[in-house]
Amino acid sequence: MKSRCTVVKLGGAVIDDLHARELALQAIAKLSGAVVIIHGGGKIATELAGRMGIETTMIEGRRVTDAATLELVTMTYAGLINKQLVADCQKQGINVLGLSGVDADLIRAHKRVNAQHDFGFVGDIDQVNAAVLKQFMDAGLVPLVAPITHDGMGQLLNTNADTIASRVALALQEFYDVQLLLCFDKAGVLLDLHDESSMLEEIKPDQYEDLKAKGVIHKGMIAKLDNAFEAVRQGVQVCLCSYADLQKGTRVLVE
Amino acid sequence: MKSRCTVVKLGGAVIDDLHARELALQAIAKLSGAVVIIHGGGKIATELAGRMGIETTMIEGRRVTDAATLELVTMTYAGLINKQLVADCQKQGINVLGLSGVDADLIRAHKRVNAQHDFGFVGDIDQVNAAVLKQFMDAGLVPLVAPITHDGMGQLLNTNADTIASRVALALQEFYDVQLLLCFDKAGVLLDLHDESSMLEEIKPDQYEDLKAKGVIHKGMIAKLDNAFEAVRQGVQVCLCSYADLQKGTRVLVE
Repeated sequence: MKSRCTVVKLGGAVIDDLHARELALQAIAKLSGAVVIIHGGGKIATELAGRMGIETTMIEGRRVTDAATLELVTMTYAGLINKQLVADCQKQGINVLGLSGVDADLIRAHKRVNAQHDFGFVGDIDQVNAAVLKQFMDAGLVPLVAPITHDGMGQLLNTNADTIASRVALALQEFYDVQLLLCFDKAGVLLDLHDESSMLEEIKPDQYEDLKAKGVIHKGMIAKLDNAFEAVRQGVQVCLCSYADLQKGTRVLVE
Repeated sequence: MKSRCTVVKLGGAVIDDLHARELALQAIAKLSGAVVIIHGGGKIATELAGRMGIETTMIEGRRVTDAATLELVTMTYAGLINKQLVADCQKQGINVLGLSGVDADLIRAHKRVNAQHDFGFVGDIDQVNAAVLKQFMDAGLVPLVAPITHDGMGQLLNTNADTIASRVALALQEFYDVQLLLCFDKAGVLLDLHDESSMLEEIKPDQYEDLKAKGVIHKGMIAKLDNAFEAVRQGVQVCLCSYADLQKGTRVLVE
């Protein structure tokens, strides 16, 4: 039997809010087995772009990564956010190794080809080096991955953190029984955004389609759940949960 | 007999100039044995500080690291510079792992106490985790360390890259026969800055004192050489050399 590995995706409030971060790291410290953390960018990049006079262009809700924006997200995600999170984890006694997809050739990607829009230096993942992650975990380290990848030819690329989390989870199945926790500031998938008690214990494809049709599940959540269902179909256990409680939440099921 | 490990310190032109960087990485790719690279900050941090409206305060030639400057150097050193260097190394076939002193608890430091001046979030090193560096090198990885450390209580700190390089070299002596290469844009220690043929093959303490007294060795070089002599006294082989040729340069000797 393979041993357990938990891939935890942290984003939003955990990045922007110190108290939320502390709760999240305390919850992670209690996990047993191997752990990999993937983090997103939060609002800091947008705020810094303003201070540095870098214009943010969005196409269909996605940030266009021109050269200046790529520098900005590299600095912010792999530098500021990643290293402060590592320092906070070390304080909690979690021996974290901060990484990006560039380090140890962890995540190879290629610049997105899109006939309609040029999203700039955005990377679609080709390959995740699960073996090197396993080496780090075997050495007692918790990899903490910033959402920057590379093409192997010296070009850094900006890649969505949810996508990285599910691709990392899928790749780790070679060595582990993998659980993916998509953490955010809600208890799970809520039928009523203002009522935590409306959380679904589990969500299946039929119900998901129904909730989308009714407009209960909104835009950002759709990308997250599409990613989640895809990972579940390929054998990963997925749960959407609050960063403050990793034991509960909405389990994503395909049957 | 211990096996060889080379600690390479890169700074200045290698950070700021793409061509210099390419030459340096090609030279590093030719090194045999285990390799650790330490990099400095170059001019990018100062340039970005200007764009972000962060004032740079210097005391006795040293940057004062207030909270905004700490964020800036963390982003720049551990994010932008480190990750672009890693991507460039991967392109050259060097399987580099980008790190800061925070990652895997690599370098613990404490905030500098100075009765006369407050240098802010500057870290003086307490401990280097040589065992974890050895684990990475045993796994075939080349650690590339950005000059950011931490205090174990969640506080990031800014630490001089030359100092990190010599402290890392000293700590690695537990496992290796260590050589420290301090690379810069000159061939070595020059008697005449404008004449590369005036390079000293070796430099000893008496001669160093003499050259300082005559004003031939100037300010930045003094800190570098003081660090170098200290490392040599503790058993490390040290050479000041050009980033483009790691086989030549000025050997630092104590007798």
